[in-house]
Amino acid sequence: MTDAINRSQIESTLRRFDAGYRHFLHETPLMKLPGAALGVDCAEVWLKLEQLQASGSFKARGMLNRLLSNPIPTRGVIVASGGNAGIATAAAAKLLDVPCEVFVPRISSPAKQARLRALGAALRVTGNAYADALAACLERQKETGALLTHAYDQIEAVLGAGTLAAEVDAQAGAAPDTVLVSVGGGGLIAGIASWYANTVTRVIALEPELAPTLHAARQAGEPVDVSVSGIAADALGAKRIGSIAWPITQKHVQQSLLLRDEAISKAQLWLWQHLQIAAEPSASLGLAALQTGVYQPKKDEKVCLVICGANLDLATLKI
Amino acid sequence: MTDAINRSQIESTLRRFDAGYRHFLHETPLMKLPGAALGVDCAEVWLKLEQLQASGSFKARGMLNRLLSNPIPTRGVIVASGGNAGIATAAAAKLLDVPCEVFVPRISSPAKQARLRALGAALRVTGNAYADALAACLERQKETGALLTHAYDQIEAVLGAGTLAAEVDAQAGAAPDTVLVSVGGGGLIAGIASWYANTVTRVIALEPELAPTLHAARQAGEPVDVSVSGIAADALGAKRIGSIAWPITQKHVQQSLLLRDEAISKAQLWLWQHLQIAAEPSASLGLAALQTGVYQPKKDEKVCLVICGANLDLATLKI
Repeated sequence: MTDAINRSQIESTLRRFDAGYRHFLHETPLMKLPGAALGVDCAEVWLKLEQLQASGSFKARGMLNRLLSNPIPTRGVIVASGGNAGIATAAAAKLLDVPCEVFVPRISSPAKQARLRALGAALRVTGNAYADALAACLERQKETGALLTHAYDQIEAVLGAGTLAAEVDAQAGAAPDTVLVSVGGGGLIAGIASWYANTVTRVIALEPELAPTLHAARQAGEPVDVSVSGIAADALGAKRIGSIAWPITQKHVQQSLLLRDEAISKAQLWLWQHLQIAAEPSASLGLAALQTGVYQPKKDEKVCLVICGANLDLATLKI
Repeated sequence: MTDAINRSQIESTLRRFDAGYRHFLHETPLMKLPGAALGVDCAEVWLKLEQLQASGSFKARGMLNRLLSNPIPTRGVIVASGGNAGIATAAAAKLLDVPCEVFVPRISSPAKQARLRALGAALRVTGNAYADALAACLERQKETGALLTHAYDQIEAVLGAGTLAAEVDAQAGAAPDTVLVSVGGGGLIAGIASWYANTVTRVIALEPELAPTLHAARQAGEPVDVSVSGIAADALGAKRIGSIAWPITQKHVQQSLLLRDEAISKAQLWLWQHLQIAAEPSASLGLAALQTGVYQPKKDEKVCLVICGANLDLATLKI
């Protein structure tokens, strides 16, 4: 399955975006800073400002790619997610003018439900937990035959995520020495690690201590369920590393590091207070790793952080 | 006086920044979008993301340049401003490790006062209006001999602002057809218009209807006092166009356009809701001009907007 995910396929995906979808999917800026600008003792820190992406996160790349790569039934697309994947699916469906049905549990935030409705999605609020919404979604999909999108465990989503890394290299004129990537279900890191597979660029996985899907899988030697909680659970709260991401990360991800919620929260606030970047907690793990020393770069190192999303309640950023 | 403000001097200023101050002053990203991404019928809209600048606005360029271009007395620097110029002066003073005294009126916001204190400035809260704080500042300056920085009417501030335009051209590999620039005292537009003087790039001035310093001066044929109010008065609330900006804008600014507060506010919200860019009202006039049609670009036009600041209360961005 993962043979279909390689540099050439990622380049094809990027060409498809470039050819006709740049009014929707942005080439997000790459901001290069000296390490000292962030209080980090390394040559450069590159911020891939993917929080400026359509739909507010990198997920738009994968969800658009999923919709472009498959025939879309008359009943449109269907997804279970009140988070970034749901918003990205609804945004891509709106762009392509196809119906979109989104299943979310009752605990999903009113702000995100409002955003989904504003994107024209038919919203189904079902059950108390994500699992309930997913079950209802899958049942409904059998009935309607709509195209199902998955937040991370589909090849198209991983290829879409990989285009982000391809952009970084083109924008910088060279690859970074290291990329720090937040991991939930692993779609983003699988795409990035596939791009940098068998190159000198190292890919490092970052997870909250309270949502350690990859870290737990590495310890167990296979994907295992973990309990998830904490401030980034909204975006990184997959229960288990994805079946596509697992073998790719085993081959091409050098390290798996964990971060405390306090450090993530502090980095998120730092991004706003010092760089005026409004990012969600899941997008702040890279800076947290650098500023806490959980990841210590060499002095001459060029480190790329992926600021992967900004679907947040601004009230949480108030000083 | 304005003979000292030209392309060559702006290039020198940029070289000085590049040589030793990039750990503080950022080369802010340029985000290129097809006009359609913003609902605008033109080829491209470029967003110069200057709200990501150190101190939260473009003012850091001019204030740092002011401090680097003059001997700094032992008593340091002094400024009257509770807004972006004050914050930028305090940030530059902190960088250079010199004392900074800031005079603000009692009406200045607690958030900005806290930010000034966090930057290590000695804060003097004096009088009910800006004029009172300024009078106290000038009296104190005579006493201490500290270096005075002015928000817009000093050559160094204008040259600093001009470096922003020099960066745009270098980042894009070409100059835009048009640049839309918000005007308060005119420091930013004077720098940008000096950079593009006698080129094919047109520079357009944008002001709130409720703070029309340049527009009123053009109608009167000379700088005149105006009364200022409205949502962008915090940043664009100079009472009169600057003495440096006036002759430069008369020569090199093609149009002066006015915008309603409602349009500015709508554009500000659009920037957050669709691009996750947190910007202050003064930074939203360019998008407002495009989205309302107050400025109508040609179909093949490449328009650059300067997103000039993000010193805002995030509560104002809540949906």
